[in-house]
Amino acid sequence: MRLSRYFLPVLKETPAEAQIASHRLMLRAGMIKQASAGIYSWLPLGYKILKKIETIVHEEQVRAGHIPMLMPTLQSADLWKESGRYDAYGPEMLRIRDRQDRDMLYGPTNEEMITDIFRSYVRSYKDLPLTLYHIQWKFRDEIRPRFGVMRGREFLMKDGYNFDLTKEDALHAYNRHLVSYLRSYERMGLQAIPMRADSGPIGGDDTHEFLVLAETGESEVFYDAEITDLKFGDREIDYDSVEQCQGVLEEFTSRYARTDETHDEAVWADVPEDRRRVARGIEVGQIFYFGTKYSEAMNAVVQGPDGKQAPVHMGSHGIGVSRLLGAIIEANHDDKGIIWPEGVTPFHVGIVNIKSGDAEADAACEDLYKSFVKLGLEPLYDDRNERAGGKFATMDLIGLPWRVTVGPRGLKNGVVELTSRRTGESEELPPEEAVAKIAAIYAGV
Amino acid sequence: MRLSRYFLPVLKETPAEAQIASHRLMLRAGMIKQASAGIYSWLPLGYKILKKIETIVHEEQVRAGHIPMLMPTLQSADLWKESGRYDAYGPEMLRIRDRQDRDMLYGPTNEEMITDIFRSYVRSYKDLPLTLYHIQWKFRDEIRPRFGVMRGREFLMKDGYNFDLTKEDALHAYNRHLVSYLRSYERMGLQAIPMRADSGPIGGDDTHEFLVLAETGESEVFYDAEITDLKFGDREIDYDSVEQCQGVLEEFTSRYARTDETHDEAVWADVPEDRRRVARGIEVGQIFYFGTKYSEAMNAVVQGPDGKQAPVHMGSHGIGVSRLLGAIIEANHDDKGIIWPEGVTPFHVGIVNIKSGDAEADAACEDLYKSFVKLGLEPLYDDRNERAGGKFATMDLIGLPWRVTVGPRGLKNGVVELTSRRTGESEELPPEEAVAKIAAIYAGV
Repeated sequence: MRLSRYFLPVLKETPAEAQIASHRLMLRAGMIKQASAGIYSWLPLGYKILKKIETIVHEEQVRAGHIPMLMPTLQSADLWKESGRYDAYGPEMLRIRDRQDRDMLYGPTNEEMITDIFRSYVRSYKDLPLTLYHIQWKFRDEIRPRFGVMRGREFLMKDGYNFDLTKEDALHAYNRHLVSYLRSYERMGLQAIPMRADSGPIGGDDTHEFLVLAETGESEVFYDAEITDLKFGDREIDYDSVEQCQGVLEEFTSRYARTDETHDEAVWADVPEDRRRVARGIEVGQIFYFGTKYSEAMNAVVQGPDGKQAPVHMGSHGIGVSRLLGAIIEANHDDKGIIWPEGVTPFHVGIVNIKSGDAEADAACEDLYKSFVKLGLEPLYDDRNERAGGKFATMDLIGLPWRVTVGPRGLKNGVVELTSRRTGESEELPPEEAVAKIAAIYAGV
Repeated sequence: MRLSRYFLPVLKETPAEAQIASHRLMLRAGMIKQASAGIYSWLPLGYKILKKIETIVHEEQVRAGHIPMLMPTLQSADLWKESGRYDAYGPEMLRIRDRQDRDMLYGPTNEEMITDIFRSYVRSYKDLPLTLYHIQWKFRDEIRPRFGVMRGREFLMKDGYNFDLTKEDALHAYNRHLVSYLRSYERMGLQAIPMRADSGPIGGDDTHEFLVLAETGESEVFYDAEITDLKFGDREIDYDSVEQCQGVLEEFTSRYARTDETHDEAVWADVPEDRRRVARGIEVGQIFYFGTKYSEAMNAVVQGPDGKQAPVHMGSHGIGVSRLLGAIIEANHDDKGIIWPEGVTPFHVGIVNIKSGDAEADAACEDLYKSFVKLGLEPLYDDRNERAGGKFATMDLIGLPWRVTVGPRGLKNGVVELTSRRTGESEELPPEEAVAKIAAIYAGV
């Protein structure tokens, strides 16, 4: 993309209404614009990153054997009355009346609707196990929306639902989700720690939240320092293997890691003192096993191998897709702006022409641009007729992990400058080597 | 995908509520399930096709130089009061009051919001031309939703908006959209004819609708038979070239083609009698140039090269993404079911094992499956332990354009059967030749 043809309305001033770094930086980098309280338009740069995150979530869910579909944003109140949650859900539920005076609502979650889909079609244990998921906009009418996309009202969420014959099978589905979530977050450059959690209005006993450590996190977290050494990495996993998935669960949840909601001083005291850490965390996902709560209430039963009807065991599993942008920025920024991890960066590399209009510099930039595109990489080329300082500031603000700077002086010596956004380190090298180096970096992402 | 692990709830009975073929077939093929009146869940198969259509629309918009972003589903009423449309828009607008008693609405379209975004950031003609678009769920509270996704209430639409300094530039944007729409529809296997249209509540003088000919179309259409010979084909186009885009507009709109809303008997009489056709059509898109209607009402002005402030010239351009599934099926089906064009088929090829459990047949199917996957193709393998007749019926119903049938008898002679869904023609050939033939077909799509 050539910046002269893009729509990237960066702001010079820091918006007064933004209290935390991610909100401030998303506004300044031209990623979002508030449409109304807690509701945002995703400007081109923000939308691009949102899509990258959504794609990672899709890929990892499909890899785990979960099946994508899409439920609508608006729901009839009927199903919620059937489950008993229509009255139980507070004023966060946006209730709507249509022109025929039917009670509708903007879905804050989809347990009822997916259970209704399941019971409409599935009759036999032979059609299990089954995990369906979707990535769809949700609405929660927060009384005081704030922190930008971190606590908005209209937000994008991945929510998945497993249907299994037995508790044992459902816990395997739970474990599959834990594994796929660990993989997803790592691909986004995040360490998200599974912590024992409260189930809240969803219900159920087994539940873990995934928290990203960040000073601005909404939750206080308590954890064993050993936990931050764990990496899922590039290990192979067979999602059909109960043992393998269970092993990952045990590895990642056996050490103490809890939020203030479930923190237990007695258990905490058993953690060696030098390994106890108290910090703050941002919740970016949660998995639940809730057994037959909804299947009993809504009569979602299957015939088992013994010929008897039994309610299915279910769980639901969510990732806060739009919220993740905020979480990633909270964990990856400095005074100059955002620092995108390679897995989610909107463009792979920035090209800064420090002397636009200079025939040689223009030609070298064009060559670089074409070389990157040829390799399947997406460069953002700042071809505008502006001062170099402003171009650098924009690149630093929007946070592309790599920048190639091109100017007449370097070109005389046959080199361009390659700069890492994260370390700030630069090196001079011939253009073709800069291209090869960037390509090698992304080949490993 | 192995059918035993997929969720494809096909129905044997024809649902009574469905009046037209596409609605009937989408329900029977397990593509959609009604959630409430005019609101549908997209089951896995339907979602997969919806995504394919969305991807084609994205690719062709980006190719034309238009920039993707995303606006929210819920809008504040304030902007609509500013443009004057809040009162003008009838009961089709779903009006919502949030917990703070603010007037909101579920967006039926986005002229106001995009104009607000534009005026918030753009000050100079130097930032033009600019075309922004998004693909987002919309809501129109139809009094009598029907025909499935063809006339639903919650529907997915691509809507794009161009901002230009002059009428001339805006008409070039109009032409770019016409070209990109022709390309998009052709990639989906559709012939959509641009017809002179009425502007309705959007306003403006220049507007064309795109109509797909189908018996069940909601509009009566009148056209010169020569028009159906026109193909955009694989010609190269430079979207920056005013002449090239204008040339395509002239080529595709110079012959008589109108809906009943704009039909003019006097002009119609000039069409040679043997070329006059009266038929029915389904609207799948519309483009508008409406000048300064919204920019004046909402003060979206830029400084021109002469230093003077002037309201920008705008247009809006829509493709009914979810409705397209219905339109494609109306134009591509027979008594047995759907016949997907190769460009949008959910799976490239079906593999039917007519003797599941037979070691040789199972192994041959596995080999075929892996060969297709290796070539980047997505097969749907019916590995269920069911009768061959049922498997054929399912494949015919869901409409994959190509089917490979594998059985012990053929394997003894070293062959499998390759069948075209559209023609019904079959041929026997060695498995590797069947794979090569399918690969060659999709290489050209």
